[in-house]
Amino acid sequence: MNELVFIGLGLNDEKGISINGLEETKTADYVFMELYTSLMPDFNLQRFEALCSKKVQVVSRRELEEENGTIILEAARKGKTVFLVPGDPFIATTHVTLRIDAEKHGIKTRIIHGASIISAIISLSGLHNYKFGKTVTVPFPENFSETPYNVIAQNKKLGLHTLCLLDLKANEKHFLTINQAIAMLLEVEQKNKKRVITPNTAAVGIARAGSNHPTLKADFLKNLANYDFGEPPYSLIFPGDMHFMETESLIAFAGAPAEFRRLAK
Amino acid sequence: MNELVFIGLGLNDEKGISINGLEETKTADYVFMELYTSLMPDFNLQRFEALCSKKVQVVSRRELEEENGTIILEAARKGKTVFLVPGDPFIATTHVTLRIDAEKHGIKTRIIHGASIISAIISLSGLHNYKFGKTVTVPFPENFSETPYNVIAQNKKLGLHTLCLLDLKANEKHFLTINQAIAMLLEVEQKNKKRVITPNTAAVGIARAGSNHPTLKADFLKNLANYDFGEPPYSLIFPGDMHFMETESLIAFAGAPAEFRRLAK
Repeated sequence: MNELVFIGLGLNDEKGISINGLEETKTADYVFMELYTSLMPDFNLQRFEALCSKKVQVVSRRELEEENGTIILEAARKGKTVFLVPGDPFIATTHVTLRIDAEKHGIKTRIIHGASIISAIISLSGLHNYKFGKTVTVPFPENFSETPYNVIAQNKKLGLHTLCLLDLKANEKHFLTINQAIAMLLEVEQKNKKRVITPNTAAVGIARAGSNHPTLKADFLKNLANYDFGEPPYSLIFPGDMHFMETESLIAFAGAPAEFRRLAK
Repeated sequence: MNELVFIGLGLNDEKGISINGLEETKTADYVFMELYTSLMPDFNLQRFEALCSKKVQVVSRRELEEENGTIILEAARKGKTVFLVPGDPFIATTHVTLRIDAEKHGIKTRIIHGASIISAIISLSGLHNYKFGKTVTVPFPENFSETPYNVIAQNKKLGLHTLCLLDLKANEKHFLTINQAIAMLLEVEQKNKKRVITPNTAAVGIARAGSNHPTLKADFLKNLANYDFGEPPYSLIFPGDMHFMETESLIAFAGAPAEFRRLAK
């Protein structure tokens, strides 16, 4: 049967995929994968190919975005095609276009979900999911923008937490670090002087969420600014109003200093 | 080694778990599971036990919340203990307390993430993840509250989408339906007359996200109010400002009427 199945690889390594996702891959006629929208730190393609007993064709950003994924659509016209994507397939919006194109060409599509960095980061921190506001990506310094600062400000005003994803070019091994992101936000503060983000602002830095060795550190920015988070990928949370169970979580799981207790409302 | 590993079961059935999660379960001395915080529509415990070759002890809300999960902590003092939870383990905040208690008792904890209903719903809809504001749960009519209406209003004012989870008591097979949730929100509108939610408001109803047979329907509330979404679980999205790619997604994946094109900004 010809169809296009989008499958989430989940997090970290080749065993982050669900049993359902692996079984669908084993029965596919054509298997494609992209590895540029996220970094899966311990992922190994050869081990994955052994696991699913299939040859996997890794597609580039060019093939997907400039050539509109034609190579995948052509395969899906001929037989069962799976497209494997880090995390959950459409949390990065890049692939929505491919799915729309497939449906327009009469190719049926399905989704097998995977664990996403979004829920993993929230889960790891112990902060309450329903208290997160809008998510934002902090860009590389060459694409400097005040947007992340403004999103954090808006969320804080509403008492909400902000999840900041830090920009990356996974296949060039180029990652915005937590230290760089903090420096950029403090630079906007210097200009705006709204006292949204100061050296005494509380935050949580997270590296390698979803791996067996994540680093979480909650502290005030003055202490996080030079903290060594180790290998990528990175993200950063700015808490809004915290319940005491949330400050206790940050103390227990993220090494927050005891002064965090005073932040509970 | 004694430790407590929280493992996400992912979505829908016993094969929603990751390969990593299944392997950790196979090597555990004690295996616990809860099935009351979410509904996994096609989950079968016997099939799961066959898959992991372990006897699984299902724990109740009472054992976890009133008795503070003592049964799990006692096992984790003696050997490797896994606790299996629908979706991603800490997206429902219920289990954060158990993790804090374990760490306080000197029991090491780890997390193996699973696909969460939160990212699955966003992924299915094709709406852009970074445009969602605060998430809210719509309660059963007997716990009537204006909070969901106010959260939707606040998000809309900021141009943001709202993900509404609909309340459930999974082990009593009691689910708030999409139709009931819409009726409750329109009732608040009748009182407040702020024109936030009217029969002409656009929304997306989703049933059985993560299963092989999800139902998505985007339409105006007057048309969704009596739409048959089939079996639970249910959720509902109120879009804020939409990019034209988002309205195209709703037309392609959620059967939205062509008039949705006029909503794109």
